[in-house]
Formats: sequence, structure tokens, C-alpha cells
Amino acid sequence: MNKPHRPKARVAKGFRDIGPDEIRGIRQMLAKIERVYESYGFEPVEQPFIEYTDALGKFLPDQDRPNAGVFSFQDDDEQWLSLRYDLTAPLARYVAENSQKIPTPYRSYRQGWVFRNEKPGPGRYRQFMQFDADTVGSASPAADAEVCMMAADTMEALRLERGQYVMKVNNRKVLDGALEVIGLDGDENTTRRLIVLRAMDKLDKLGPSGVRLLLGTGRKDESGDFTKGAELVQSQIDRVMVLLENPIDALRADDSAAAFRANTKFSEGLTELSAMQTIFDVAGYGPDRIKVDPSVVRGLEYYTGPVFECELLIPTMDEDGKPVRFGSVGGGGRYDDLVARFTGQQVPATGFSIGVSRLYSALKLVGKAEESATLAPVVVLVMDKDRQGDYWRMVQELRAAGIRAEMYVGTAGMKAQMKYADKRGAPLVIIQGGDELALSQVQIKDLRLGSELATQISSREEYASQRLAQVMAPDSGPEFVAAVKKALAQ
Amino acid sequence: MNKPHRPKARVAKGFRDIGPDEIRGIRQMLAKIERVYESYGFEPVEQPFIEYTDALGKFLPDQDRPNAGVFSFQDDDEQWLSLRYDLTAPLARYVAENSQKIPTPYRSYRQGWVFRNEKPGPGRYRQFMQFDADTVGSASPAADAEVCMMAADTMEALRLERGQYVMKVNNRKVLDGALEVIGLDGDENTTRRLIVLRAMDKLDKLGPSGVRLLLGTGRKDESGDFTKGAELVQSQIDRVMVLLENPIDALRADDSAAAFRANTKFSEGLTELSAMQTIFDVAGYGPDRIKVDPSVVRGLEYYTGPVFECELLIPTMDEDGKPVRFGSVGGGGRYDDLVARFTGQQVPATGFSIGVSRLYSALKLVGKAEESATLAPVVVLVMDKDRQGDYWRMVQELRAAGIRAEMYVGTAGMKAQMKYADKRGAPLVIIQGGDELALSQVQIKDLRLGSELATQISSREEYASQRLAQVMAPDSGPEFVAAVKKALAQ
Repeated sequence: MNKPHRPKARVAKGFRDIGPDEIRGIRQMLAKIERVYESYGFEPVEQPFIEYTDALGKFLPDQDRPNAGVFSFQDDDEQWLSLRYDLTAPLARYVAENSQKIPTPYRSYRQGWVFRNEKPGPGRYRQFMQFDADTVGSASPAADAEVCMMAADTMEALRLERGQYVMKVNNRKVLDGALEVIGLDGDENTTRRLIVLRAMDKLDKLGPSGVRLLLGTGRKDESGDFTKGAELVQSQIDRVMVLLENPIDALRADDSAAAFRANTKFSEGLTELSAMQTIFDVAGYGPDRIKVDPSVVRGLEYYTGPVFECELLIPTMDEDGKPVRFGSVGGGGRYDDLVARFTGQQVPATGFSIGVSRLYSALKLVGKAEESATLAPVVVLVMDKDRQGDYWRMVQELRAAGIRAEMYVGTAGMKAQMKYADKRGAPLVIIQGGDELALSQVQIKDLRLGSELATQISSREEYASQRLAQVMAPDSGPEFVAAVKKALAQ
Repeated sequence: MNKPHRPKARVAKGFRDIGPDEIRGIRQMLAKIERVYESYGFEPVEQPFIEYTDALGKFLPDQDRPNAGVFSFQDDDEQWLSLRYDLTAPLARYVAENSQKIPTPYRSYRQGWVFRNEKPGPGRYRQFMQFDADTVGSASPAADAEVCMMAADTMEALRLERGQYVMKVNNRKVLDGALEVIGLDGDENTTRRLIVLRAMDKLDKLGPSGVRLLLGTGRKDESGDFTKGAELVQSQIDRVMVLLENPIDALRADDSAAAFRANTKFSEGLTELSAMQTIFDVAGYGPDRIKVDPSVVRGLEYYTGPVFECELLIPTMDEDGKPVRFGSVGGGGRYDDLVARFTGQQVPATGFSIGVSRLYSALKLVGKAEESATLAPVVVLVMDKDRQGDYWRMVQELRAAGIRAEMYVGTAGMKAQMKYADKRGAPLVIIQGGDELALSQVQIKDLRLGSELATQISSREEYASQRLAQVMAPDSGPEFVAAVKKALAQ
């Protein structure tokens, strides 16, 4: 016989398995976000994982090639299918397909995995989860403001405190108008616009002087790597810095911003920002929760108006061990053209997307991920295979009382069973050998106290002689359950 | 300018969008299943959606071609990747890859979408959800029995009653041994074995006479379609019927089954079934909850021992409008060879998988899906755009009191806002025009009573004159909230 081919057991490149703590922690986190979105009257709706490639379009960040970055395959009728790379493009397809059925404005939320066919890196996976809320069919800044306030409320529902998060708001029309004013309009300047926007986006990290370098000839970082700049002239750079370094009131009134205000797009954007600011003010969302910030860019090319970013201010380390703020855990903005791709009719839309894993990491960092609420189960050991019915009855009694409990279902002996319970992190094991059975009793042994020793015990007798952290109790009924509860509470 | 290409907005073939009722209903159902599995001490673990194709293997039902039935694509390093088609094959990969880390037996559960690249049909989608529980590393029938009892408990946690469900248990060794005895062993009989197993599987639907036809020359159904039979001779057919028509005790003792018992595989299977039956007996799971049924086959080729199926006995209609039982909502069994594919070492494993959508349909059918617990939100209408802050404060007060509430965020007038609230299914709208504002009051209007009329109202004045199902209340504070609560409770 030929030696059979054996594939190597390995998780695919850029993917990962997820264990109990993270699953439980994220489940709790998602439930809290849901509760906020539900209280706002947003309704859940979900699109499938697979869409026609042409329906997803080419709205990948900074990508010109239509299929790069997505996982695609051809169907048996030769149509191309793709795994969704975000939750927004499928929603746009859904809205265009069902415009007659849905109320307007249509306020919905959804949560799910998305896929990127990109090079994975440390902490960068090809499958990750997003949690989105969107309002489709309203051009009002109230819709944008609502999404921002809901995001801020969500952070507090997750027990983040004022000062640990901030929603930053900007407007793409303000950015686009300003770029027009400094002469960077037109298709021939697409690349330079991108470099300028990226430079502005780095204000937090590099400060004004670093941004000035990136707007000019370029910047060498600490490691000696050189990033080529946008090659703007000094007067252009000064104007960009006016935009970055002035609050919204100054941009609306000061002489230094007069040239910007003469631009229609810029003015429109500024009016929208002001309308949102007014709502934040009257609704009581101060700048410690939501603030206008002209450096917010957001990478996705489909944004057409307000853009937002939720930044966590909690301190952490970057890859080089330098202290930095945690940074963005979500973002969004207005995308008025996404439904129009299908229908030709502009449908105003705005939304916010949370990066679920990133937000969860942040909660863990500040000790607010509720992953450990679940205790490992109590394990009833099998001393006599023919008495499994009795052991089963014990776990049933414990479960009925709300205690996680399992009967050992393997075939190994006493020593291996103790090792198993220890590896499981079981708080207690319950033992009924012949002696205990004769007395209708069980031994309840606390592994949390004696776990180190337990793995070294080599025989039933040696074990029984230790009597470490163990109590006797009746083997059934309320006294049995009460004794286990008492032992667990210790 | 060229006319831009506009893709048609359509959901991909064999996929579907899911709305609020189903999302909420399934969310509740999954939480209940989780609670049972957690109480048993099973731990959540999740594998990614994408695996190396060779790691998934060729364990698709009745498929010989390695990639048929799955969605596959080539990675940039030329390795083939596939979307998972079930949750068992990825678990086997995970266990093989992490055997040193995990406790043995390893009892885990997971829930998630799986994908089949197959022709869709009515109610048959290419993306569907499964909820699995598995015990890896125990060859004991106790592990199989536990999974069956947990499945039975799950059905009751979902409020199905005794008599509405039954877990049916069989053993592939019993089937394989019996087929050997009637002379259907060997590779040359693979197809005939499959036909015989399929025929046995139809006992419930066609009765003994129908199965006899399918074991023999074949059977013509009501529509005149002819299904070719297994072409067994009469003595072979009689033996298969002995297997199908006798309870386990008879198979263990009666002369008619003596020839079967002489077969090693058959005997082994029978012993395993008996061991499971003993556990069911002592643990108090009677035949109204779990029963041995020799007609249970299960399609998947990887089962090596016990197989189980959860059948719902609730009456429904088949595609032709004929009354039938609802049928299977889940199944599973022992798959001792699946991890060995990677390691060469046999690792005993058993598990149970719930078809989430099917189970949810069943719960809906008997009125036990808890989808409607969520009330649509109260809508605060925008009578004056400049007073949005006041309206916002109202929804904040209501949300703080646990009431779903939204301020209208669109740009339309009064009439469209009423239509919107109606389409949303809002129980109440809250209105504060100039008159009400002067009195610091709001109108609370019950749409559940007046919804038909509301959509026909064409002006504020006409509306105000109707006074149908509406009350006045203070516009803030505890009295405001209390009035809304009272109106909701009506």
C-alpha cells in the first residue's frame, strides 16, 4: 500500500483561531453595542458574505484595480463573486435593491466578518469583524450628528470614561475645497492630494513641524527611513497649516481663512460642520466627547461629506515600545454616491463602523473586557465506569442549580482525570469512591488551592491521604448542591 | 461623457438578506443553545472561515471530487484556499494543530456560517448557519451519550415539548456489519451500499413496503417518477428488514439476528448502542426523548460509529402540500478518522450539529421563536428644524428610561414624517408644535390605533383636529416619561 498523503494541519496564512475568553468577551461587547443601537431605534439587517463582484465595486482604500484586495471566484454561470470586504458596499446593494420596501430614512445596524485579500502582518488579519450603523436616505446633518452621538454613547456603554475616548469630526468638502484653493484640483493631482491628506492625518503623531516636512520635500524618521513629501511650495504649506491649526470658529470668521471660504465646496462643508456642532452643543455632547478636528481624513475614497473617527486616548505602546495613544477604533462618514452606483439616483447616506477586534483589545487593555464572567465547570470524576448514571445525576443536579458541571467522559484513570480537571481550570472536582459511596457522601476538592500538588499525585491512596482543601458532603439533594456552592464561593 | 456602467443591484444567486425579526429571533435562540452548552462545561472555540483546501479534505456528502461543492480560490503563494463547508473539518484541523495545548477529552462548541458551492433551490441556500458541539479525545460511549442528552436538553430549553422532538440514535458499525453479512462489502459494492442506506433512511416516509421496493427493483412514486432500487434478492431484503423492524433488545437476543451478531463490526456497534442506552436509562432520558432507531443513516461518509439525528415531530406540509413531520433539525455522530488525516494517529471524536435556520423555522411554526420581544421605537417628529436639540433631549430621556426612541433625522415635512413612523411600525409619535410648546407640553399619538387614518392625513391642521388616540403630557421630566410609558402599555 502507498503511504497516504497527509496534509499538514495549519491555519491558513493571515487567519486565526479564537479561544473562549475572546469569544465570550466579544459576545458581551457586541451585546452592549447592540443595546445602544437598538435603544436609538436602529434595526438589524444582514447581507450575505458573498456578493457579485460588480455590486461591491472598486471602493477599496487607495486601490485602483477592481479586484485587488478581495477574495473572488467565478460562479458556474461565469459571473464573478467576491467575499465582502466591508459591510457598507453590501448595504448599498441591499438598499438599491429594496428601495420600495424600506422606510426613509432607513436606520440600520449589522455586525459581521469581512475579508481582505492582503498581505497579513502582526495583528493584521485577512478576516476581521466590523460593527456598522448607517442612516440611508437623509441628507440632514442631524443624521450625521446622530451617528456620532450614538458612537460616543456606545463607548460609555462599554464603560470607557470621558477622557478615554473622543469622536473626531471633519468634512471632506472642507478638505477638498481647501485643496482646490491651493491649486491641487484636477485628475493630474490625484496622487499629490493623497499625499497631502496622508500628511494631514499625521498631525497627532508628528506635530505641525512633521506635517510641514511631509507637505514639503519629505521627512526622515528616527530609523532613518525617508518618506517623500507632497512637494508643495511654502505658501501652499502655510495655507494647509491654517486649516489644520484653527478651530472651526476661526475658519468661519478669520481673515486668514477668507480665501478658503470663497470656495463653494469649502463653504458647504463648513456649514455642515457648524450644523452638526450646534446639535452637539444643544444635546450636551461637549468637546470632551465629540470635537471637530480638521486633521481627520479617513482613507476610503467614497466619503462625500462629514467624516468621523473614534479615537481612544488611553496610553499604550507602539511596535517599537514607544508610548502612544491607542488610536482609532472606528470611523465613518457620509457616502452619498454609493447607492447611486446602481440606480443613477443619488441617495444620501452616512454611517459609522467599529473595528471589533481593535475595540476589544482596547477594553482588555483598560480592564473593561468582561471575558472572565464564566467560571470553568465543576468536574465529577468517574471512579467506577459502571456507575456513570450516578455521576450523571450529580452533574444534572448542579446544572439545575445554575452551576456549570461536567462528568468526565474520557476513558482514562484517576490520575489523568485529575490532570484533565486541572488543565480545564476546574475550580472543584467531585469524587465518590467506594468509601464515600458507602456513606452516601462525596468528596469536594478545591483545585484552585491544591492544583500544583494535584498534578504530581500518582495514586488514589496518596491523593486520599492529602486531605488538602477538601470537604465531605451528602451525595445528592439540596445539601449536596449547597456544599458545592459554598466551596465555589470560597 | 460616456454613460457610466451601472451594475444591477441584486443579491447573488443562492444567497439572501436577513431582516430584523429573523436576526433577533435567531440571536435569542443561539443564546439559549449557548446557555445549555455552557452549563455542560463545553467551551467556545472558533476557526476562521477560510482554510487550506487540503486541510478541509474531501469529506463532502456523497462527493468524490475534492473541490466540488466548496468555494475555492488560489492564494498568491499558489496554495488553494476554500471557504469552510461545515464546522467539523476546521475543528479537526484545529485539534491536530493544537493537540499539545488542549485538554483531553476536549469538549467545545461553535456557531457560524458555512458555505456550499451547490445549486440553490427553494429554501436551500449556499450560505447557512450551523451550531456544533464536539467531544474530541474520548472513545467512550459516554461521550456520544452526553452529546445526545445535551441535544435533547437543548430542544427543551427552546421550549419544545416531549412529543415534539426525538433524538434518534444508531451506529454505523451496525449498518456496515449488516451490509457485510448480506454480501455487500467491498469497493465494487460502494454504490449499492449507498442505495441500500438511502432506502433504509426512508422508512419513516415510505413505510416497510416502500423500503422493500427500493431495496428490490425500485419504486414508482405518486407523480409517476421511478426510483431505481438496489436490486437485492428477497433473502437479502428480508434480512435488511429484520434490522429495521426489530428493537435493539431483539437484535441482541433473537435468532433472526444471529447471523448479524456473528459479524464483528455489527457486534461492536450493538455493544456501543447498548452502552449508550444504559446511560440514557439511568440518566432518565426515556424513549420519548432519545431512542435507538436502526433506520438512521446520516449522509456524511466520515462517520465511524454512533450516529444521531434530532427529528422534530411537529406536523407541517411538504412541497406538495401533503402533511408530514417537520423532520431533521440536526445530526451528528462519531468521526474517529478525521484528525488522523493529519497526524496519522486516530483521535476518537463525536459531535452534534444543529441546522440553525431549519430549527428556527420549526420554532416559528410552533410559535416559540422569540422574535417579537422588541417593540418598534417611539418617533419624535421634527416640527421645527431649529429646535432639534429639544427633540433630541426628549429621545434621550426616553432612552434613559429604557424606551426605544428616535428623533426623525430626515428632511421631509409633517405628512412624510407620519408616513415614516407608520412604515416603521412605531407605536407612538411625539409631537410638539408651537401650541404645545407654549404650554410646555407634547402630544403623544398612538399609531397602533390610528395608523390607517394617519397615512391619509394631508395637513397639520386636519391632523390636529382629529384627536384620535392622543393625549397631552408635560414635555420633560418624570411626568413626560410616565405618560409615554402609560401610552405604550395600552
